Amino acid sequence: MSEFEESGIGEECGVFGCVAAGEWPTQLEVAQVLTLGLVALQHRGQESAGIVTSNGVNPPTYNTLKGMGLVNNAFPPEDLLKMRSCNLGIGHTRYSTTGISELQNCQPFVVDTLHGKIAVAHNGELVNAAALRRKVMRHGVGLSTSSDSELITQLLALTPPMEEVDAPDWVARSIFDLAGEGDTEGWVVSSESCSFQSIGAKYYREVMPGEIVQISKHGIKSLSIVPRPEGDLPAFCIFEYVYFARPDSIFEGQMVYTVRQQCGRQLAIEAPTEADVVSTVPESATPAALGYAQQSGLPYVEVLCKNRYVGRTFIQPNTRLRQLGVAKKFGALTDNFAGKRVVLVDDSIVRGNTISPIIKLLKEAGATEVHIRVASPPIRFPCYMGINIPTKEELIANRPEFKDIAGYIGATSVQYLSVEGLVSAVQGGIPSIQKGERISTKPSRRVGHCTACLTGKYPVELEW
Amino acid sequence: MSEFEESGIGEECGVFGCVAAGEWPTQLEVAQVLTLGLVALQHRGQESAGIVTSNGVNPPTYNTLKGMGLVNNAFPPEDLLKMRSCNLGIGHTRYSTTGISELQNCQPFVVDTLHGKIAVAHNGELVNAAALRRKVMRHGVGLSTSSDSELITQLLALTPPMEEVDAPDWVARSIFDLAGEGDTEGWVVSSESCSFQSIGAKYYREVMPGEIVQISKHGIKSLSIVPRPEGDLPAFCIFEYVYFARPDSIFEGQMVYTVRQQCGRQLAIEAPTEADVVSTVPESATPAALGYAQQSGLPYVEVLCKNRYVGRTFIQPNTRLRQLGVAKKFGALTDNFAGKRVVLVDDSIVRGNTISPIIKLLKEAGATEVHIRVASPPIRFPCYMGINIPTKEELIANRPEFKDIAGYIGATSVQYLSVEGLVSAVQGGIPSIQKGERISTKPSRRVGHCTACLTGKYPVELEW
Amino acid sequence: MSEFEESGIGEECGVFGCVAAGEWPTQLEVAQVLTLGLVALQHRGQESAGIVTSNGVNPPTYNTLKGMGLVNNAFPPEDLLKMRSCNLGIGHTRYSTTGISELQNCQPFVVDTLHGKIAVAHNGELVNAAALRRKVMRHGVGLSTSSDSELITQLLALTPPMEEVDAPDWVARSIFDLAGEGDTEGWVVSSESCSFQSIGAKYYREVMPGEIVQISKHGIKSLSIVPRPEGDLPAFCIFEYVYFARPDSIFEGQMVYTVRQQCGRQLAIEAPTEADVVSTVPESATPAALGYAQQSGLPYVEVLCKNRYVGRTFIQPNTRLRQLGVAKKFGALTDNFAGKRVVLVDDSIVRGNTISPIIKLLKEAGATEVHIRVASPPIRFPCYMGINIPTKEELIANRPEFKDIAGYIGATSVQYLSVEGLVSAVQGGIPSIQKGERISTKPSRRVGHCTACLTGKYPVELEW
Amino acid sequence: MSEFEESGIGEECGVFGCVAAGEWPTQLEVAQVLTLGLVALQHRGQESAGIVTSNGVNPPTYNTLKGMGLVNNAFPPEDLLKMRSCNLGIGHTRYSTTGISELQNCQPFVVDTLHGKIAVAHNGELVNAAALRRKVMRHGVGLSTSSDSELITQLLALTPPMEEVDAPDWVARSIFDLAGEGDTEGWVVSSESCSFQSIGAKYYREVMPGEIVQISKHGIKSLSIVPRPEGDLPAFCIFEYVYFARPDSIFEGQMVYTVRQQCGRQLAIEAPTEADVVSTVPESATPAALGYAQQSGLPYVEVLCKNRYVGRTFIQPNTRLRQLGVAKKFGALTDNFAGKRVVLVDDSIVRGNTISPIIKLLKEAGATEVHIRVASPPIRFPCYMGINIPTKEELIANRPEFKDIAGYIGATSVQYLSVEGLVSAVQGGIPSIQKGERISTKPSRRVGHCTACLTGKYPVELEW
Repeated sequence: MSEFEESGIGEECGVFGCVAAGEWPTQLEVAQVLTLGLVALQHRGQESAGIVTSNGVNPPTYNTLKGMGLVNNAFPPEDLLKMRSCNLGIGHTRYSTTGISELQNCQPFVVDTLHGKIAVAHNGELVNAAALRRKVMRHGVGLSTSSDSELITQLLALTPPMEEVDAPDWVARSIFDLAGEGDTEGWVVSSESCSFQSIGAKYYREVMPGEIVQISKHGIKSLSIVPRPEGDLPAFCIFEYVYFARPDSIFEGQMVYTVRQQCGRQLAIEAPTEADVVSTVPESATPAALGYAQQSGLPYVEVLCKNRYVGRTFIQPNTRLRQLGVAKKFGALTDNFAGKRVVLVDDSIVRGNTISPIIKLLKEAGATEVHIRVASPPIRFPCYMGINIPTKEELIANRPEFKDIAGYIGATSVQYLSVEGLVSAVQGGIPSIQKGERISTKPSRRVGHCTACLTGKYPVELEW
Repeated sequence: MSEFEESGIGEECGVFGCVAAGEWPTQLEVAQVLTLGLVALQHRGQESAGIVTSNGVNPPTYNTLKGMGLVNNAFPPEDLLKMRSCNLGIGHTRYSTTGISELQNCQPFVVDTLHGKIAVAHNGELVNAAALRRKVMRHGVGLSTSSDSELITQLLALTPPMEEVDAPDWVARSIFDLAGEGDTEGWVVSSESCSFQSIGAKYYREVMPGEIVQISKHGIKSLSIVPRPEGDLPAFCIFEYVYFARPDSIFEGQMVYTVRQQCGRQLAIEAPTEADVVSTVPESATPAALGYAQQSGLPYVEVLCKNRYVGRTFIQPNTRLRQLGVAKKFGALTDNFAGKRVVLVDDSIVRGNTISPIIKLLKEAGATEVHIRVASPPIRFPCYMGINIPTKEELIANRPEFKDIAGYIGATSVQYLSVEGLVSAVQGGIPSIQKGERISTKPSRRVGHCTACLTGKYPVELEW
Repeated sequence: MSEFEESGIGEECGVFGCVAAGEWPTQLEVAQVLTLGLVALQHRGQESAGIVTSNGVNPPTYNTLKGMGLVNNAFPPEDLLKMRSCNLGIGHTRYSTTGISELQNCQPFVVDTLHGKIAVAHNGELVNAAALRRKVMRHGVGLSTSSDSELITQLLALTPPMEEVDAPDWVARSIFDLAGEGDTEGWVVSSESCSFQSIGAKYYREVMPGEIVQISKHGIKSLSIVPRPEGDLPAFCIFEYVYFARPDSIFEGQMVYTVRQQCGRQLAIEAPTEADVVSTVPESATPAALGYAQQSGLPYVEVLCKNRYVGRTFIQPNTRLRQLGVAKKFGALTDNFAGKRVVLVDDSIVRGNTISPIIKLLKEAGATEVHIRVASPPIRFPCYMGINIPTKEELIANRPEFKDIAGYIGATSVQYLSVEGLVSAVQGGIPSIQKGERISTKPSRRVGHCTACLTGKYPVELEW
Repeated sequence: MSEFEESGIGEECGVFGCVAAGEWPTQLEVAQVLTLGLVALQHRGQESAGIVTSNGVNPPTYNTLKGMGLVNNAFPPEDLLKMRSCNLGIGHTRYSTTGISELQNCQPFVVDTLHGKIAVAHNGELVNAAALRRKVMRHGVGLSTSSDSELITQLLALTPPMEEVDAPDWVARSIFDLAGEGDTEGWVVSSESCSFQSIGAKYYREVMPGEIVQISKHGIKSLSIVPRPEGDLPAFCIFEYVYFARPDSIFEGQMVYTVRQQCGRQLAIEAPTEADVVSTVPESATPAALGYAQQSGLPYVEVLCKNRYVGRTFIQPNTRLRQLGVAKKFGALTDNFAGKRVVLVDDSIVRGNTISPIIKLLKEAGATEVHIRVASPPIRFPCYMGINIPTKEELIANRPEFKDIAGYIGATSVQYLSVEGLVSAVQGGIPSIQKGERISTKPSRRVGHCTACLTGKYPVELEW
């Protein structure tokens, strides 16, 4: 278990799109494909979900389905059935960063414009939002929310349409992550490739940073509108590898699970330990723990079982039960470690208040030593690109206690993976040419990753 | 009971505004005044309610409170308390004409514009909406709903601000009905004057058609922006008098109840009856029935008591209980009419399917004759100004059965008030100079009323 | 409007039963008859509603439908359809006296006993509940609630069955109010006769106090199990006439509306007034006001219109709006009384805090005098038979202010109907032989009424 | 993942009890201890939860808190706070076997009896329920539900109290599973020992079959009321070890996780495989898979990652997406097994429809062979003791396809653990004397386990 999970830190939203190639009723059922795709992206947002489908003729009809909570609750089966004759659509699963949970923030948005109706689903953060807001309002537009998505929508309404794009294909503008191929029957795009397998789609290629991709039933076309300045590397979030993405997703040609396992191996090289067993704080740290065990030659065992029903803590502060907050999330598998020296691998430490009661639990149940090995470097800086990391003062790596972090959390020893170690684990596995690559235009093939939360080096100039 | 009530026909929405003059904490509590004002306008819309309050400084803060259903359910008392330091605001109670019931349609809307934030509450129908939509979208604005209110909001965002208007006062733009004076402590405006008494306000004057009124803590200022062409009479909806408005409201210097009573008197002159008692279909027809009784000299009695808990009918069609749909709404007060000839006054007949079981009920309980007298003329034409009247084919006055309407509904006789009789009852009571009138500019003092649903003469050219 | 309504004082619950005589599918649809019957009894309880239907064979099947809130919301139409083949059943609408609102208190209850399954719906209060509880528990039964209805159910389970009663007819044990005849097609019983008209049933006869009535498809049979001791008069609640019952209900051969009108006439004799108009506090006082007007010869007018959407008051105490609590319920129909002396008839005064702001409203709107005439005597004592009257200290008639009640509430004068006047108005209209009476056994034909809340004379010895 | 989980098969409910020894406010906060204890038992029931607490004086007060859904949602923190001064209580978490989900079935029940109030929480199935129902009803008691718990409650009401038991301690009658010691501050009992660690309690001893334990603040007392006939072995459900219990729970002196690991080792001995890697269907089969890997010497890897947000399948049947039902639950970790021979360990196979798409997923992603090894024997018979196993016809082991089960599910080979292997894995680890054992009366120390669903040998005579 990552402290990210404990802290409610997460990625901002997931998007998914689908265009069916065949004709109804033999074609893919788009609404069901969208639903399955969003279920596979559920880890990127659990507040609300929505889909918009269309029949794709000119002018197109649009059908919208939105609901609060998980995808499976948000879309009643009978409403999905009504969307049967649609052959393209987009979907969105929303992670709330603002804490305000309302159906009206649920995406995709549909707006009527001079160019016809546009449906927009958006995943990300506009780093120049304030400037863009001023631009739009100066043009006489009123904005009813503070969301980037409404802003993008009104920007699209203001923009003259691209010559080569037919009206229903505008829908493709919002795609910017990955692209997959639903064999001969259509095309899908998704925030993460893990959703392709859920719907029986084959992985085809990744969308490049700055690339705009147009998908129709005839296939996929790249509109490379935003060239990157010479010498300016892209900056893919390195924490997608460390924590956010699903382990079975593929970025830059490599599986996330394998990168995490490699982080564990690198950690075993950088921070070896004399111990009896290696274990994990389930579940996100498990690949790193297995990697550490393989590299170190120490046996891998399970020391904690997780109570999957535990939610938020509500115990009042002035009782002796307060300290049990984490204990109720885990049970100690005593037989596996009593009387032994344990290396416990976790994927990250944020505030440092989650790992401490776990160590106490293990020691009380008989562990003679507990060595903490963290498969990522200390987090020291805020993120301005969409991750709601705590304030600088709350991060344990910026606090005086950090000098004796082992003593502070009760561990026998604590060691982190180095920034260089993390970067080499991530970049070492990227193939020089991606498997199955078919396009020649590569707007940004040179590799780059954002490590701002670890190093303070931000990839864009910050606008205040 | 009017068939309007039975058919769910109603006015579109109510609006209310308030500006406090004093300083907090001795000033009026604006959120509570808005709430009480909206409760008094509840008959104009029960789908949802909302208020927006502001502290009125520059730039102003805005607080929004919205909810589904009746005002008393929509605003939790603890949320009203949080609005304590506000000193101006507007409110809205919504009547759904579309049948789609969603919180996101709930007004007032607040939008961020080049001129600052604007809050808008709107009650009415734009007769040139299609042209205005084209204008706004041609300017590059996207519209996310089909509502007139969003359209008005974006029109306000596009419009350059008037020179003499300070930012927080823009809020007053949405007012177009009536204006009242909250003694020395502030100013309120409302769709109907009935809400003034609820909050202890004194009636001051009416807002004229086409008049824009600006209200601030310093008082009220008229901005006569839309002069009416020479010879063009205003066209106030005559059914506000017949059914929509609350009987204690004042329009054009006269109380609605008194106009209804006068309609009953006029009806007794136009359609006298030999009978034993006069009665009402409660509750909306009661003033007309009392007027009929006074004019005719016949005694007034109650023949029906209403079950105030009855809602929609859900009895399945293929049973002998189907015909009891109306019976369960009313109980017969047999002692008052058994063995007697009854004149039953109703305010209007729309489809003709409500009055029929009432007559049957009275006859089975012992009435020897039932004479129906309707205190308004037959409705024959659709309304394009916001009232959802049934289609022409559904209106009983346009159907073949109308030739023998008495036989069709089972009455001994049926007679309607004439159009001339209705107009004279309405216009005869309007004082040449309104009591307490203080302003000299009168954009449209010459009297005119819309009778389109009765005569087919529409006050504006219709845009298709 | 009665202060009873304002205070939330009400009757405890309504019960309704139906047995169809024909065969399905031509027979009455029992579930729909029960539903319509309960809607007509809705004024006796709005907290929850339930029905239990049966196919009436041996052993019978039972189907239960329960829900919170009003009848129309509690029973989904599709669930009623599933009950189509049932031919007898009972229903209940619940008024909460405890303030605890839970579906598990919703009646009817069904229990499995040695005698088969019994369904019970209960309306009333057991004055010897404590003794009966001890008896049942001493027998080894556990009681899971404090409700009288569970107690009755376990008493029925303990009781040996009556010889002449077949199992499905046990259902009739719970009936104790009135009986009506659904022409040739079946039989219904109800707490009040007002519900008969809703379903097209004819009034047949009343159930006597202490009488047990058994209803089957063959008709109705009286089981006079509980003879009344010589000289012991029955004690029907006199406030059913004054306020609780619907005006179109019949008790003891007379219509409630007519009794209320007679109270108004009697009041005009006891407390005549020099004035210009007579009016009512709508709606419950209207028959008394019309009676007063008829007897006195003064014209009857409406002075108040009611805002039917007003619910509970939630205005915070420390504001000048507090005193407006009642004003928002009513609008003043100024034209009808400005410059005039008004006699305002109300049906009862409980705490005295409702009438005061109404008088203020009328005076501020121009009434020169306001004379309050109350169509019932002052309430001075608590009720132990099921009505949640306020404590003795809260009743205005027991407080020092009562000496100058007119001054206290701001009226020009105040006068009440005498106890003797009320009793004569009620008992004077009871026919010596009820119309349509067919049974010879009359366990308690001698008339008696409970006036304990007015006189302190309770009809049973109180158990503490 | 077990097919048990996929099929919604589960244990019936969890119970938990607590008695505090100290005085308020230094004593344990009983309501919070109960809540934490129930959270740890959440896997035994997710439908509803309830607690009843008492102040333990004579006569005791009782406070009840119940709610639908998970424990964390069922108890509002502010309601827990109100229970502060209580010093004993019981709790229940309910697994619905009937499919009817209502708050009124939520336990514990509290009933008023001749012996005072009794609170009852019950986990289990009465094999002689029908006879007991007849007994209770013959005594004149009505039963309002078909639940065993209501039956137990009325049986307790009928039973004369035991001489040595004080009233508040009756609460302990419902305990029959395990007992733990909350250091010096009080005593707790629970369905499973895993909950002790959640609240910082130490394991003390197990409650024996047939044993009644009385717990008070003075400690624990055994009332051995139900002696077992000579030669009659107890019959603890062997599937608590295989699937139902949490892996960190202790039964009969051994940790469940260790028994499962031992089943995996035994399986590797009984069914060895030539392969490259061993893996698990996460999460319940992981200990068995690790045991298999350790015994066989093959490397353990993860081949599947689980989408923890997947709920029920709602895809309509007539689409090609139907077969993807399981795929969306799991993602393939391709790098770990592509081109390899995989041994996949699962804990049980019920209908055989879950494992098949998993095998297809692995093969399509590159596994060259998939050998299924099941860590329990085939299930062939129904359970009459409370587990809702499918009908005999639905069980794959009873169907013709079972002859070629490998071909049917698409595996390279399939092998099950033998009944003897399971029994030896379970019984081999039970210590002859339990650690920390302090009591001398051992009503049923000789070991016995129910294997009826595997062998058809039921431990009691079945009553039909």
